Amino acid sequence: MLDQNDLLAFEENLPFWNKLNAEEREILEQGTIRFTHAKGTIVHEDRHKCTGLLLVVSGQLRIYIISETGKEITLYRLFERDVCVLSASCMIRNISFDVHIQAEKETTMLRITTESYQQVGLLNTDVKDFTNELVSSRFSDVMWVVEQVVFMSFDRRLAIHLLERAAIAGSDSFAITHEAIARDLGSAREVVTRMLSRFQEDQLVRLSRGGITLVDRTGLYDLT
Amino acid sequence: MLDQNDLLAFEENLPFWNKLNAEEREILEQGTIRFTHAKGTIVHEDRHKCTGLLLVVSGQLRIYIISETGKEITLYRLFERDVCVLSASCMIRNISFDVHIQAEKETTMLRITTESYQQVGLLNTDVKDFTNELVSSRFSDVMWVVEQVVFMSFDRRLAIHLLERAAIAGSDSFAITHEAIARDLGSAREVVTRMLSRFQEDQLVRLSRGGITLVDRTGLYDLT
Repeated sequence: MLDQNDLLAFEENLPFWNKLNAEEREILEQGTIRFTHAKGTIVHEDRHKCTGLLLVVSGQLRIYIISETGKEITLYRLFERDVCVLSASCMIRNISFDVHIQAEKETTMLRITTESYQQVGLLNTDVKDFTNELVSSRFSDVMWVVEQVVFMSFDRRLAIHLLERAAIAGSDSFAITHEAIARDLGSAREVVTRMLSRFQEDQLVRLSRGGITLVDRTGLYDLT
Repeated sequence: MLDQNDLLAFEENLPFWNKLNAEEREILEQGTIRFTHAKGTIVHEDRHKCTGLLLVVSGQLRIYIISETGKEITLYRLFERDVCVLSASCMIRNISFDVHIQAEKETTMLRITTESYQQVGLLNTDVKDFTNELVSSRFSDVMWVVEQVVFMSFDRRLAIHLLERAAIAGSDSFAITHEAIARDLGSAREVVTRMLSRFQEDQLVRLSRGGITLVDRTGLYDLT
């Protein structure tokens, strides 16, 4: 059962909400549950499982792909008020890839089942338009990853990544493993460790057990 | 002015065509021109220019991105009967990247202007659905590129690429420069030359001036 806060989250973050009639809203409300995933757990991993549309109420999700050998690369992250559409990709024709979604913090979400969402999409074209705009946004996010991976040197990518991490943490000091950075960038831990050591020699960062501190933001910006 | 063959191309390749009424068809026909690009010429390069939807009547298009320094990577190719949607990305909200489109052979296309296509899209949801299915297809194509670039070793990518080239050429011998392969794979010419030389030493291919012959298809498949 949804409470007033959940309905407010719908109203504020689903741009079509105010264009739905009472019956359409009812379908969505009936098809929605609120749930919470603990930090580190997997929220979605297979498009055939049709997890549904996810509205992040609080927390942080990481959307990534994983190879047969276990190598990963992060495509993008979603934060409070973001809507995850690839978790509902079973309803999108011609999406032929799987993404994995992990809660990077304890994350509370409203999950709209694919059935309810699709049903309302058939009644209301604003819903469909929203879905398609989300798909295009994520497509653009992935194109940015392609540009980074193909066109940028690794020191530049790592510098951008460290500045992003600091922004997400809200601090120049943050806890992170070299392994986690490697997973984000689609690289190997050894490569990350080597480049971080060079950054430390150049006095751009200070490395500590399980954490990094940015000591020369300007120097890192200059690399990007 | 479109002729009977052009209208047949619409009927056969635009799945919504038979669901349009006479007025909607008229809008599309009035907004369409047939044109031909010579081999090697650029068909589209800036989403703000709104080239429009392209239906390939004959020939071959390469869709790629290019970095500030001129490095390229091919995202996918389109052939006879394919429809190019990213050339009309100005009408798609949240597409925030540019692609370049080059005619790799002399290519004849039907170009539907963005205005006409959008106008019919507002009248007929089948048209919108088609657009969105195309976007999802291209998104999936790009995800395949991401997986290749991030997860595959270069010898594997090159082997896949040579087998694809042979399939497109319809022959185990085809004309190609190392430079062109590098552009496709988002790599450097030197890297391609080095790996091709190794393939030749391993008796997988035979290199000649301006061309490559596959001599051991099974060996190349084994690499993929």
